[in-house]
Amino acid sequence: MLNIRYEKTATPKELPAKNDPLKFGTIFTDHMFVMDYETVKGWHDARIIPYQPISLDPSAMVFHYGQEMFEGLKAYKTEDGRVLLFRPNKNIERANNTNRRICIPEIPEEDFLQAIKEVVKTDEAWIPTKPGTSLYIRPFIIATDPFLGVRPSDTYKFIIILSPVGAYYPEGLDPVKIWIEDEYVRAVKGGIGEAKTGANYVASLKSQVKAHEEGYSQVLWLDGVNRKYIEEVGAMNIFFKIDGKIVTPVLNGSILPGVTRDSVICLCKEWGLPVEERKIDIAEIKKAYEDGTLEEVFGSGTAAVISPVGQLRWEDTIMQVRDGGIGEYSQKLYDTITGIQLGKEKDILGWTVEV
Amino acid sequence: MLNIRYEKTATPKELPAKNDPLKFGTIFTDHMFVMDYETVKGWHDARIIPYQPISLDPSAMVFHYGQEMFEGLKAYKTEDGRVLLFRPNKNIERANNTNRRICIPEIPEEDFLQAIKEVVKTDEAWIPTKPGTSLYIRPFIIATDPFLGVRPSDTYKFIIILSPVGAYYPEGLDPVKIWIEDEYVRAVKGGIGEAKTGANYVASLKSQVKAHEEGYSQVLWLDGVNRKYIEEVGAMNIFFKIDGKIVTPVLNGSILPGVTRDSVICLCKEWGLPVEERKIDIAEIKKAYEDGTLEEVFGSGTAAVISPVGQLRWEDTIMQVRDGGIGEYSQKLYDTITGIQLGKEKDILGWTVEV
Repeated sequence: MLNIRYEKTATPKELPAKNDPLKFGTIFTDHMFVMDYETVKGWHDARIIPYQPISLDPSAMVFHYGQEMFEGLKAYKTEDGRVLLFRPNKNIERANNTNRRICIPEIPEEDFLQAIKEVVKTDEAWIPTKPGTSLYIRPFIIATDPFLGVRPSDTYKFIIILSPVGAYYPEGLDPVKIWIEDEYVRAVKGGIGEAKTGANYVASLKSQVKAHEEGYSQVLWLDGVNRKYIEEVGAMNIFFKIDGKIVTPVLNGSILPGVTRDSVICLCKEWGLPVEERKIDIAEIKKAYEDGTLEEVFGSGTAAVISPVGQLRWEDTIMQVRDGGIGEYSQKLYDTITGIQLGKEKDILGWTVEV
Repeated sequence: MLNIRYEKTATPKELPAKNDPLKFGTIFTDHMFVMDYETVKGWHDARIIPYQPISLDPSAMVFHYGQEMFEGLKAYKTEDGRVLLFRPNKNIERANNTNRRICIPEIPEEDFLQAIKEVVKTDEAWIPTKPGTSLYIRPFIIATDPFLGVRPSDTYKFIIILSPVGAYYPEGLDPVKIWIEDEYVRAVKGGIGEAKTGANYVASLKSQVKAHEEGYSQVLWLDGVNRKYIEEVGAMNIFFKIDGKIVTPVLNGSILPGVTRDSVICLCKEWGLPVEERKIDIAEIKKAYEDGTLEEVFGSGTAAVISPVGQLRWEDTIMQVRDGGIGEYSQKLYDTITGIQLGKEKDILGWTVEV
């Protein structure tokens, strides 16, 4: 149990206007949670303080050797005024998996959850209520030793910032176009692809820029060894509905184990739909497309929840999925998950946690 | 040509004592170079200011998505009082290769060199003079947009800090023990292994910790696809002398193109020694060891210049190279390169640049 020190802001910011589109990740609330780590003291000095700049020595390790991790989850305001988190323990468990992989000291799960709850409670007034909006929660840890040698840092900062975010699809679900990358690689088995750390995102930038120039909004990665097995979409995991079955790449060590991915699998099984987690050769997708058995393609992630995919491009092949329309299960999964998140659907799987 | 603004420190620090061991990367000089980037203005506001903390919004992209790069080179004080840089244009060229790979705007080569020269000149008094010491120069760039979306940043800071460093081997060259990693992978073809960015270093930490626990000082990486071709040692490139020939892994896109690596190759060719840059199967090294044709193993890097390798461990095989002693070429390369760096040896290849 953390003993959190509070320092409330003396100059609260104005809340965003009701009709503000709340562009993702650009507006931040009045407070932040901060906790420090030193080898001798462990994690200490938990505090909720006014949102403010971080001041670090120019030699701080995070600027040089990328020892940093983050998580992303959301808080929702229900119609009857409760504040719900969606499966926060899955994020916390994954955070500590990331920490172990990149040599950052773990944070006790109950302390992590307490920190999230307390800072969300502090800035509860910032949770937007328009349909599709939510309060995005960004916990992250950075290595702060002022030292240019390469080794795990002895000091860290754990910070949680909050950002009210608008509906990902203000006009309702909107299918995206996806570029299948055949030149660059995001991660490889034995590497850190399953950790939520900056390294995997910086590795994706060049390909993302190329895809945007070609008119595609996201990149689908293939594996780094055989360059043919489907991995993930950087910001999302990917699902295919082929001949009545839901198929998704198995967690192989180089893809991120998404919380929404897990939720999709649980719900599909709940609904009696066959789900296969396995290796998927991109040639299999092309064949299913040509056979007419590729019934749906969609991505899953915290930001958009479910993203129907309307087009896939692999080398010179353009696969138009469902003529660009939204699939039955894409819509049903989106409605069910957002329904649970907002407290409108019955939470039969016990996923929500009240703040 | 940069128009550099100067703000000299009002409170100069005390210079390190003559007998200070100058532990690598822990002591910093009085000043730093800083330059900002914005999409509209480009690189601007070049300045040399007192060494001071960097203040960034908690949402600054460098804390989340790893968009950061660095370089490392050294300045030396010659016996007749000149200040020499060693092949700075190779570092600058590599810096811009890194920039292109991770979508950071390039810095004109002449501006980059001017910035290094000016900041070194400003803190010239900090260049140590004891044998083996030097002034380590650390240029780096960080992404500073206060934005949680994943894309290349629109704003950056380019910073150069300086650190007087002691002799890597105060008692003379000292062979190291190296662990050949067979579980984790540093980088893969198509990834960012040839870029000097934090991602490659954070990926190496866990293996480094494991090797240290086993009594090994460094990790030798194998390729991520076949898990058998030799890549590099994280902080160094690697060379083998087998049956009279110098052999080193070819630059394949996943290893760092070291400046000292290139210098070693140039000198060996100058001396008429056959040099092969090619794929090297770890099994070939084991066979050469068993045959008695593995004559020398050494690493090359800016920090240690040349590191003789006394032992290699691959799975259960321990290869004792030269009974742990220093090879003829390891010593000769070390003496020649450090001789050129310090202005004692004739600089026949035109490698040094006077500040």
